[in-house]
Amino acid sequence: MNMELRQPLQAQRVKPAVIDCDLHPYASYEALRPYLSNRWWDYLQTYGERRKHGFANSYPYPKVTPRASRRDAWPPSGGAPGSDLDFMREQHLDHYGIEYGILTPLNPTGQGDQNPDFGAALASANNDWQVDAMTSREPRLKASIIVPNEDGPAARAEIHKRAGKRDYAQVFMLSRTAEALGRRRYWPIYEAAVEHGLPVGIHVFGYGGWALTNTGWPSFYLEEMTEHATSMQALVTSMIMEGLFERYRDLKIVLIECGFGWLPALGWRLDKHWKRLKDEVPHLRRAPSEYIREHFWVSTQPMEETEEPNHLIDTMNWIGMDRILFASDYPHWDFDDPFMALPPSLNEKQRQQIFSGNARALYRLG
Amino acid sequence: MNMELRQPLQAQRVKPAVIDCDLHPYASYEALRPYLSNRWWDYLQTYGERRKHGFANSYPYPKVTPRASRRDAWPPSGGAPGSDLDFMREQHLDHYGIEYGILTPLNPTGQGDQNPDFGAALASANNDWQVDAMTSREPRLKASIIVPNEDGPAARAEIHKRAGKRDYAQVFMLSRTAEALGRRRYWPIYEAAVEHGLPVGIHVFGYGGWALTNTGWPSFYLEEMTEHATSMQALVTSMIMEGLFERYRDLKIVLIECGFGWLPALGWRLDKHWKRLKDEVPHLRRAPSEYIREHFWVSTQPMEETEEPNHLIDTMNWIGMDRILFASDYPHWDFDDPFMALPPSLNEKQRQQIFSGNARALYRLG
Repeated sequence: MNMELRQPLQAQRVKPAVIDCDLHPYASYEALRPYLSNRWWDYLQTYGERRKHGFANSYPYPKVTPRASRRDAWPPSGGAPGSDLDFMREQHLDHYGIEYGILTPLNPTGQGDQNPDFGAALASANNDWQVDAMTSREPRLKASIIVPNEDGPAARAEIHKRAGKRDYAQVFMLSRTAEALGRRRYWPIYEAAVEHGLPVGIHVFGYGGWALTNTGWPSFYLEEMTEHATSMQALVTSMIMEGLFERYRDLKIVLIECGFGWLPALGWRLDKHWKRLKDEVPHLRRAPSEYIREHFWVSTQPMEETEEPNHLIDTMNWIGMDRILFASDYPHWDFDDPFMALPPSLNEKQRQQIFSGNARALYRLG
Repeated sequence: MNMELRQPLQAQRVKPAVIDCDLHPYASYEALRPYLSNRWWDYLQTYGERRKHGFANSYPYPKVTPRASRRDAWPPSGGAPGSDLDFMREQHLDHYGIEYGILTPLNPTGQGDQNPDFGAALASANNDWQVDAMTSREPRLKASIIVPNEDGPAARAEIHKRAGKRDYAQVFMLSRTAEALGRRRYWPIYEAAVEHGLPVGIHVFGYGGWALTNTGWPSFYLEEMTEHATSMQALVTSMIMEGLFERYRDLKIVLIECGFGWLPALGWRLDKHWKRLKDEVPHLRRAPSEYIREHFWVSTQPMEETEEPNHLIDTMNWIGMDRILFASDYPHWDFDDPFMALPPSLNEKQRQQIFSGNARALYRLG
């Protein structure tokens, strides 16, 4: 983090109300066992999850930071980071005065598993676990409805099953999917989310069967970290061009952990091309940037850092100060500290919006 | 083009010196025949070029704008746009007072052909044709050395064969390759380019065998137009992370027809991640953005258009006013008119740099 962008030390003494929109809980297979049928528990023992290729390429720092987590995030009780509610309370919720935390389980969740029925069972089990182990015991936490995203009808059924319960704040997917997320196989997910008034959170990572870039697999994890921004650009483009926001006018998309510095340039480019090629997409009624500003929210972590502080503010203003949600990524290694994450040149209203106001409105909290 | 960004009509009367860094000539198979051996001419008749899958997905407007060209760019002599030097002189070079034009042949060039020997023969034939048909007859034109980029040694040999001749201004590749362009199979190309003091121009399009995005093939050409920016982001990332610019310190890369609005955000992101993960790439000695600013040039077309004029100037300043090259993309449908392409808020020195000064220095012209 650039020194100029750090808040003065003094500011750390005033704890703002914070809603953390990217908080990773972790359920071991054993923890999910009560929510899996014998059939799927046996299957898990025999075949395991089958999306390893993606995972092997997704978490390359197992030696140094196992589970991509902060070294101090391993609970003394012995489980993995994110598995122990009491420790999460002490280290994160209480320490930072978190008002609400939106749970974003990454694995095991079945998303992208080659066996669609097993994937759906694992997603559903994790949805049960989030409530039993976390949200029912800690009112500051809200769950995400994990959907088996490659199977539209199954995903829709899972949303219908969960959405009535106030424990769930959003529908949840990962960014790397079998097809671009604007395409029709995913429409049942958006339809159900809109029906229940839930935003759809899309977190980076996952595995859809394709190489990470359109020139294959990159050599370095640093390239994968950068790819999260480029694949989100393709995803936003797909959602707009497929006419998703004309079809589902109340659809709200939250882009999680992909940065946001790239969003203005994407809007400029889409608007320019759309002006010339709009006859290809007659189902669009507005300029692409208008859909971006109305339908997308972004989370802060990993916070953008610019050499010129005003470039960061310009970028945030383009997106809209009412569209930016604070996120810590706890307990992962690249965690953003709420006391230091935001640029000091934001005014008090903007800080309040980003730290909590925007999330409170979006997720209908409190 | 936003009305605010157009130059006042009056300014059109003063013709600036212009070097056009993206000018597409076209050689038919018949025009290339004298430069192909009987073996490869027969092969071409029998098997044809085999990269059709990519091409089918690359030029989706054949019905409306065949060869992706301006409708007024078809020469009365009957050939395809870009094939008739006299017509190109009249319609483009003379009309706009172009001082130099850098030829960027897109096809047929053999790049990405499945048969590497045939690809090399076609590339070499087009290199002969550019000189015989264009640069030897028109001193304002400079050729590009097309290389069979998937075959490093063959590409190096082609560069060595051509580079002594002042007709050639750069080594030339397309952006969609079999691997990311930082990887070792392409190092012989960079080595030879540096040895001869030639920049390496990388134009969008081509086909390397991968889907256009990491979630497969998008539905719309509008998405492909946007993908050019994202795939260039992956390409720049790869070149930096592989240590290309430590190995080849005089290497100069020109990014053609991909826009440049995305470049500052890429630099911010790479710098941030590099600070935390630099132990993965100990061969890097500087922050990624420093390599960007020293080793990359960008061309203007399709010109970025921002809602706020100062955002465009901020973006251009971040990249460096000495790193931006005017390009028209003649004779393609999305051609940028030199009289209207640049934002009016540039000062005279900046306009001169972008229109001609930067290219003159980079390509050692005049």
